[in-house]
Amino acid sequence: MKIGILGYGNLGRGVESAIRQNDDMQLTCIFTRREPSSIRPATEGVAVYSADEIEKLQGVIDVLVLCGGSATDLPSQTPEYAKYFNVIDSFDTHARIPEHFAAVDKVAKENGHVALISCGWDPGMFSLLRLYGAAVLPEGKDYTFWGKGVSQGHSDAIRRVKGVKNGKQYTIPVEEALREVRSGSNPILTTRQKHTRECFVVAEEGADLLQIEKDIKSMPNYFDEYDTTVHFISEEELKEKHAEIPHGGFVFRTGVTGLEKEHKHVIEYSLKLDSNPEFTASVILAYARAINRLSKEGVSGCKTVFDIAPAYLSPLSGDELRAHML
Amino acid sequence: MKIGILGYGNLGRGVESAIRQNDDMQLTCIFTRREPSSIRPATEGVAVYSADEIEKLQGVIDVLVLCGGSATDLPSQTPEYAKYFNVIDSFDTHARIPEHFAAVDKVAKENGHVALISCGWDPGMFSLLRLYGAAVLPEGKDYTFWGKGVSQGHSDAIRRVKGVKNGKQYTIPVEEALREVRSGSNPILTTRQKHTRECFVVAEEGADLLQIEKDIKSMPNYFDEYDTTVHFISEEELKEKHAEIPHGGFVFRTGVTGLEKEHKHVIEYSLKLDSNPEFTASVILAYARAINRLSKEGVSGCKTVFDIAPAYLSPLSGDELRAHML
Repeated sequence: MKIGILGYGNLGRGVESAIRQNDDMQLTCIFTRREPSSIRPATEGVAVYSADEIEKLQGVIDVLVLCGGSATDLPSQTPEYAKYFNVIDSFDTHARIPEHFAAVDKVAKENGHVALISCGWDPGMFSLLRLYGAAVLPEGKDYTFWGKGVSQGHSDAIRRVKGVKNGKQYTIPVEEALREVRSGSNPILTTRQKHTRECFVVAEEGADLLQIEKDIKSMPNYFDEYDTTVHFISEEELKEKHAEIPHGGFVFRTGVTGLEKEHKHVIEYSLKLDSNPEFTASVILAYARAINRLSKEGVSGCKTVFDIAPAYLSPLSGDELRAHML
Repeated sequence: MKIGILGYGNLGRGVESAIRQNDDMQLTCIFTRREPSSIRPATEGVAVYSADEIEKLQGVIDVLVLCGGSATDLPSQTPEYAKYFNVIDSFDTHARIPEHFAAVDKVAKENGHVALISCGWDPGMFSLLRLYGAAVLPEGKDYTFWGKGVSQGHSDAIRRVKGVKNGKQYTIPVEEALREVRSGSNPILTTRQKHTRECFVVAEEGADLLQIEKDIKSMPNYFDEYDTTVHFISEEELKEKHAEIPHGGFVFRTGVTGLEKEHKHVIEYSLKLDSNPEFTASVILAYARAINRLSKEGVSGCKTVFDIAPAYLSPLSGDELRAHML
């Protein structure tokens, strides 16, 4: 199957490298809103086009992977390009998923394409685990923890603080909270009890460090409800020790069964990812395979990971899956 | 939806209690190969029939849950009853799944029913996690560990040893092996390195304990490839401390991404179950909901967990799932 990528940032480059790990896929072209000649793909022989030319590639690619951001790119791009292609995105603004779904579904159905939104690990794999957990343990509670990992949104927020030159924020799950959940005691946990936040900040010369720390720790929504630690480091140290984009987290479902609810059960799923965008890209490609198959079966409209039978993700046949993986 | 149960052992009773935790389900009847009057359901007003009368209940129940064993019951029961009902079983003889699938698929298709085989946690939830893991990290390795928990097959094997009155066997994953896998180092592990086996044995009076221990530890397939510990205890202690049927385990997928394969990722899924049959029953009911829906959509034939889109398992609508679980 032939894949196109729109947007050549961290996620786009992750998709490019993940395509090399899937024998049934090839990267056909990259679309960019920058000057195409400024893009140097890592893969030889891949064409780079301006995003303005995208319509002309209809019929040439099987699935277009949209690698833009959820704030401003995807709400317009995904419905727009579902006119011309099967598309997949990683839209992760949880609260706006219903309206995004509706907009994409309409266009995809009108144009006979399959779209899949909100793919990756959260939303994505974590969503699946929440659904499976609730379905198989209907009387219970679920818990999602993130980290240890870099939060792009919180790192951006730090960098907007006056006197800050650069910075990176790690979200860290609280060990004690993980232990309590694992025990099956179904604890009620506050925001502060679940995660801590650790910031590595490069200050501008002469900046008021105490004021920066105060501004970060009191920032509403981002930091005020958490125990936050701020470390001031040099630009060199930031580059050396904090250049990577690791992430991960945990999804738990804990619940009871039995006539007297006497038996406890704990389901735990965790991800430990060296590269958030590369893992996200890898999940996206498995679902790109699925929507390409659905499209060939004549299906159209917008889907999420909830709507895709697992077998569609695998390059193996049903016979092979039953013989070797069941 | 109306559920029937065939076989009122541990699994059948687990299904009965799990039905009470699913508001959209009711237990309509229990079928048994014993004398029906010998069965006392925990649920008031549930009819108990002889398995010989099962055909007469066509049209009265939506899904029949087959609670027999994989060795002799299910290979004949599942294809037989797929003539009359949508059926679901927990067939767990991994090597014979392809032939069981083929036999059930033929009958289910001929009679317009949906069947789902090999449901539970392994095969079942663990199979799903193996498939998802391999699909999203194509360059990697997977690992399945079982325990700590009671293995029914190994407990039966102990009880067949000369001089043994009663016994129970626990399968235990080796902590060091779990640690190595978690590190992402993709170790190659022998059978002995992955699990140990612990046996609690009640000997007959005057039996040769050393001989029993030797017979157990040298038993081919069951124990000879493992480090096994044998404890002799009284019948009272066995009843007091080893009456429960806990189980669980781990599925890992570890793999790499990146142009230079420079990033490691570790996916870990684990179950810690106080009651193996009750959890299995609870998984089965979620899939019973799914096949009932598929049947209403006009689908027929044999399915496995690989073929079922996750949304079918949940009592929530697509809108609700997208709004609250994605």
